Amino acid sequence: MTEVEAKKQQESLQERLAQVVDLLHRHKLVENLTHRQSGAHHDLVEDLVHRQNLAELQRKLDELHPADIAYILEALPLGDRLSVWQLVKAERDGDILLEVSDAVRETLIADMDDHELIAAAKELGADELADLAHELPRDVVHELMESLDAQQRERVRSALSYEEDQVGALMDFEMVTIREDVSLEVVLRYLRRLKELPGHTDKLFVVDYDGMLKGVLPIKRLLVSDPERQVAEIMALDPVCFHPDEDAYDAAQAFERYDLVSAPVTNKNGKLVGRLTIDAMVDLIREEGESEVLNMAGLREEEDIFASVWKSVGNRWAWLAVNLVTAFVASRVIGLFEDSIEKLVALAALMPIVAGIGGNSGNQTITMIVRAMALGQIGTGNTARLLIKELGVALINGLVWGGVIGMVAGVLYGSWSLAAVMTGAMTLNLLMAALMGVLIPMTLARLGRDPAMGASVMITAMTDSGGFFIFLGLATLFLL
Amino acid sequence: MTEVEAKKQQESLQERLAQVVDLLHRHKLVENLTHRQSGAHHDLVEDLVHRQNLAELQRKLDELHPADIAYILEALPLGDRLSVWQLVKAERDGDILLEVSDAVRETLIADMDDHELIAAAKELGADELADLAHELPRDVVHELMESLDAQQRERVRSALSYEEDQVGALMDFEMVTIREDVSLEVVLRYLRRLKELPGHTDKLFVVDYDGMLKGVLPIKRLLVSDPERQVAEIMALDPVCFHPDEDAYDAAQAFERYDLVSAPVTNKNGKLVGRLTIDAMVDLIREEGESEVLNMAGLREEEDIFASVWKSVGNRWAWLAVNLVTAFVASRVIGLFEDSIEKLVALAALMPIVAGIGGNSGNQTITMIVRAMALGQIGTGNTARLLIKELGVALINGLVWGGVIGMVAGVLYGSWSLAAVMTGAMTLNLLMAALMGVLIPMTLARLGRDPAMGASVMITAMTDSGGFFIFLGLATLFLL
Repeated sequence: MTEVEAKKQQESLQERLAQVVDLLHRHKLVENLTHRQSGAHHDLVEDLVHRQNLAELQRKLDELHPADIAYILEALPLGDRLSVWQLVKAERDGDILLEVSDAVRETLIADMDDHELIAAAKELGADELADLAHELPRDVVHELMESLDAQQRERVRSALSYEEDQVGALMDFEMVTIREDVSLEVVLRYLRRLKELPGHTDKLFVVDYDGMLKGVLPIKRLLVSDPERQVAEIMALDPVCFHPDEDAYDAAQAFERYDLVSAPVTNKNGKLVGRLTIDAMVDLIREEGESEVLNMAGLREEEDIFASVWKSVGNRWAWLAVNLVTAFVASRVIGLFEDSIEKLVALAALMPIVAGIGGNSGNQTITMIVRAMALGQIGTGNTARLLIKELGVALINGLVWGGVIGMVAGVLYGSWSLAAVMTGAMTLNLLMAALMGVLIPMTLARLGRDPAMGASVMITAMTDSGGFFIFLGLATLFLL
Repeated sequence: MTEVEAKKQQESLQERLAQVVDLLHRHKLVENLTHRQSGAHHDLVEDLVHRQNLAELQRKLDELHPADIAYILEALPLGDRLSVWQLVKAERDGDILLEVSDAVRETLIADMDDHELIAAAKELGADELADLAHELPRDVVHELMESLDAQQRERVRSALSYEEDQVGALMDFEMVTIREDVSLEVVLRYLRRLKELPGHTDKLFVVDYDGMLKGVLPIKRLLVSDPERQVAEIMALDPVCFHPDEDAYDAAQAFERYDLVSAPVTNKNGKLVGRLTIDAMVDLIREEGESEVLNMAGLREEEDIFASVWKSVGNRWAWLAVNLVTAFVASRVIGLFEDSIEKLVALAALMPIVAGIGGNSGNQTITMIVRAMALGQIGTGNTARLLIKELGVALINGLVWGGVIGMVAGVLYGSWSLAAVMTGAMTLNLLMAALMGVLIPMTLARLGRDPAMGASVMITAMTDSGGFFIFLGLATLFLL
């Protein structure tokens, strides 16, 4: 972590972006002019202006926090992005690579040679290096590992051995440890000798000679307690603590629940192996929310908004293909009833209403159930109760909205039996949507899958095909 | 804030919930037995078992962190929820009310009389009181305000004067302030006299005699610096700081960006008026992610999963009604082409495919644009570039998927002109979806609206009606 202070926010991020873009374009303009005039008489004045612009841009970038530079890089099209990237001081490259989105990081790494990558990565801690390792060329990683001391190399290996969604992949190793049999005065003197404390140090970890965690000493207590007292008297004995193979998202929820800033990570035997901090957990909470939104819209992952058309097509095609298959199935269901539609063409105009409302209502149910499951509020014990409630909501909505649209259809097409079929079909489709909205996520969970995955696509597929089948089937039975 | 330590998580939340439910049911079972036998000879043994169960349940609850009790209350149906609520110690009521979701809080407050509510609220700080004030009965709020000292009352008033999404509504007043002309030694002695520091104190606020913010002294620096040095030498002069009328979500993004734990809030003149802490920001980040998901599914707000059927209907009807109107419009578009469908009934089976794929693709585009806008990556300067990219993606997807489905339709119905119309309609509808996916959120933003609001409903409405119109229109022109 660099120690550049985040500057007062008098100027918003957008303003900073605008300034950088402005400087960049002035710079490019001069460059173009210079190129055009080159060969014969290279204009000294313009060369000077060019250099001034460049220096100003560089100064501006040096002032910015790595997170702000990351933001600017993400908001620039590829060409401008790489121009700015080349102006960033080499020793800051690593921090900035950690801040940008995966898609943008790829474009930046592709622009760097091995030498630059190694220089950038050398500034990073073991946990940060592990975060980047998957995206660096193999020989760069190899050379980096060689350059580390044994402890650091072990830490990188350990971090890499965990899945992305495990605590072990997110923990860092910047822990301040103390012994329990010393006075607070001694602790204070020890800290002063350290010269600098790691970010997010709100507690010190109390360990014995074997490195086993005995407790934590919150800085708050250290500051207000009598310096004569022993650590053992003041420390908290039973802190919230995590294991490296735990689910990282559960840890993030615990951080949120208990308002933690940092927490120790111990192995099975109780030995302190690392620490989690709130900043990593906040990133996780945001990513979780985002991936839910992206998945619901049928995007595989966050997209670099300036990605090439081909990359975007790749990101989006999988869900479109799934959607195409479900739409085709629905189309074949309609195909079964072509004779009925030929006899009563009003059916063709009305059937999308039945399917559409069913899909909307089913998505409401499934979203609520998936959320409650994610929060751990739903066990198998209360399935029946939830199902009854959802069916009740569906029945009311079906009768009310189905009644309204049935009446409108009845007036439009002058047929009260058509109105009755419409109302009946809407009600049945909403009931099916409610049933599936509860059962799909619960079944997925029972099978050990993520209940959110594809839930929206599945429910829409069922309410479409089901809605067409129910409506056209009832119409065929009662109207023809 | 209570000082109950969050306990080690050997037992998961679900296990704790199961234990409470078990104790509660044993308690109820005994109660039922006792009631049945009451009147004549009240069985002393069963009365004893009853009391033991109750005592065990109460002890269990006393051990739990307020956030864990909140979780349990949310996961229990109303009857059980209120039984547990009555067993919670009165002095913890306030903290727990702050932790539960809005929907569940309502059910708990409805169960308390004024006296209990006043007792619960008296334990809270001014900022916490302000959070609850909107949901408490008017006379309770009045009585609470009367009982506060002038400074506290002023603080509650000030917090209440801001909108929910402004920094002023989320700041607290637990600040430790120091002067710049003292030594760190003096600061350390001062802190010891305080006996306790507020949660999330990672920096002290340096103010002058008029309360103007001069800088901040990070605890990290306080701990590692020579105690002889002056605060003025060590403090950070230009900290990230916020204003009470700023957008709270912008503040949360700054916390995430700069990895802050706490930050000062100053008024226009630079006077320190409060502070923001990471715990409130984390809640905001999660809520923002959730409301996006809920809105996309057409739910107005988070639902108590055990809410009555009527409450749920209320939460969901608005979006269903909007959906009904748009579905009806699409139905009328189809109605325009009833003659064509009568002549070529295959059109009825194929039209939902065109509309469905368009909706899916449009939602992909709009989600990406809305996200990039929320992150501030999109200005008016790059609209054209984005539009061209999205139109390119749509063109490729339309030709590829439209071609595939066109071929299938051509084989099924034995008509190559139908296949061509299908492919053409898919491509045109995807192009329209891309155009609208970029323009809708940008127009909403230009009008000062939230670009996410209803974006999904709007784009689906357009791709449905538009898809039907394009497909049936082309078919009428070229096939009949």
